[in-house]
Amino acid sequence: MSTPTENVVAIDVGGTGIKGGRYDRSGSMQAEQQAATPAGSEAIVATIVEVARLLRTDRTQALGVVVPGVVDVEAGVARRAANLGWQDLALRAELSSELDLPVNLDHDVAAATLAESLYSNEDLLFVSLGTGVAAGHVVDGEVWRGATGRAGELGHICVVDGGERCGCGQHGCLEVYASATGIARRYVAAGGVVGLGSAEIAQRLNSDLIAAQVWAEAVNALATALATDVQIFDPACIVIGGGLAGARDLLLDPLTAALDRRLRWRSAPPIRLAALGVESGRRGAAELTWRMVDRPLVEQR
Amino acid sequence: MSTPTENVVAIDVGGTGIKGGRYDRSGSMQAEQQAATPAGSEAIVATIVEVARLLRTDRTQALGVVVPGVVDVEAGVARRAANLGWQDLALRAELSSELDLPVNLDHDVAAATLAESLYSNEDLLFVSLGTGVAAGHVVDGEVWRGATGRAGELGHICVVDGGERCGCGQHGCLEVYASATGIARRYVAAGGVVGLGSAEIAQRLNSDLIAAQVWAEAVNALATALATDVQIFDPACIVIGGGLAGARDLLLDPLTAALDRRLRWRSAPPIRLAALGVESGRRGAAELTWRMVDRPLVEQR
Repeated sequence: MSTPTENVVAIDVGGTGIKGGRYDRSGSMQAEQQAATPAGSEAIVATIVEVARLLRTDRTQALGVVVPGVVDVEAGVARRAANLGWQDLALRAELSSELDLPVNLDHDVAAATLAESLYSNEDLLFVSLGTGVAAGHVVDGEVWRGATGRAGELGHICVVDGGERCGCGQHGCLEVYASATGIARRYVAAGGVVGLGSAEIAQRLNSDLIAAQVWAEAVNALATALATDVQIFDPACIVIGGGLAGARDLLLDPLTAALDRRLRWRSAPPIRLAALGVESGRRGAAELTWRMVDRPLVEQR
Repeated sequence: MSTPTENVVAIDVGGTGIKGGRYDRSGSMQAEQQAATPAGSEAIVATIVEVARLLRTDRTQALGVVVPGVVDVEAGVARRAANLGWQDLALRAELSSELDLPVNLDHDVAAATLAESLYSNEDLLFVSLGTGVAAGHVVDGEVWRGATGRAGELGHICVVDGGERCGCGQHGCLEVYASATGIARRYVAAGGVVGLGSAEIAQRLNSDLIAAQVWAEAVNALATALATDVQIFDPACIVIGGGLAGARDLLLDPLTAALDRRLRWRSAPPIRLAALGVESGRRGAAELTWRMVDRPLVEQR
């Protein structure tokens, strides 16, 4: 397993799988390992350690781990991740002591946002439409964190005044209307066929009025949110990822038209589909980890 | 009029007045001049030149001019300002040639945002509630411009889905509900007393149900917009300025409560009233101009 090249190991911890890769400085993946996500916090940590051990070499500089949920990047603590069942887990310290490596802990969406920006080499808004709605901005090549590290919560901005209650306790959140989960749930609630995913609902737009209605409401909600973000943040480009992006032109075409209709005094930035898919998390994690490794050099300049 | 100190002249061009000041490097004003804003583009330019001539000394390094409306900062062109009746005015080139000085042309709201941030020494969202709603962010001590220079248009985000039509052509814009002008107009439309300004309407909240209703709608719209901004941008602090800020606690108390109610999964940043009032425009213009003067030095470091 040894290689003469300096490398970092990057691991993307998701609700169903743990995906690891070994990356050189150029961002090329030299090796990969995957594992199913086990139940329970301790088992997950053990699996991350196992994947990291399989990938590391004697030239490994650091480990990067990205996780969903609420992450305190500075403290290296995974505050909360509903799918993974952990709370205030000092993941950075645990992994660092277990593996005797510097560890960078970060958000999976921050990593995916950075990876998509590296791919196209432009500042952007990245929106992931999956179980929930997550988003991030890249500004001058860096992920935008905000004053308290909680920027980019596009999923919980209000797009329907006094609208449906969201799991977060607020009302009318984008996530209620435009996540893949939200669309599937609202389709059934409106009387649609039980058991369809958002991709199947998208395929029925021409033959199923309930599907067409729920889809139009999702597009409408998403266009409102994107128009808001464009007017506040003014990103150069918008990238759509997550499961719902699988609908491709069925999403992109009406969304682009709806965004154009909403912005009356300026043109909309281009909207495109995410280029990297499920690779974006560990690819971005690798880049964030290289930046951590190289940061002291930058500061000495 | 001469002084031994290096200085810049800063001028804030508004719909009713043109306010100029001479500032030293510390940001202290050494002298000031004001003039009424005349009608017509040529007359305005002539007045700016006159104010600048009265203020400049042989140690004046540059002139900073801030204007409302749409400004192309890089090109130095005032694209559009409804109140001033100009369009695509190459103000930087005209003033620079007339006065033989380097000129920095910028947005009045960008300048006010920066000035408020210098005052409290923190990154913030500044929202000016006046004839319209204008806003800006300061990030790491710099005004956030966005990819196309149009960031911070909080006034035209949609806060009421399918709401009232705005002058910009969109529907449900914050500006319709929460500008001083919008409140006065909506109060009359709802059957209120004709001829009252937003400050007078605020004074009637306990005795006038129409005033209370319109005010509550304004607070509600503004809280929605601020909650959105907090979740997207995550500013450290929110500063409220403009004419409506004159209502002070009548605005700040219900707004703070409404913002807290909307943010269910995180705490709201503090909201305070603008500290500098009408001084913020030229004070910020002076700072932006010093930064232009000093930029080559910074780059040589």
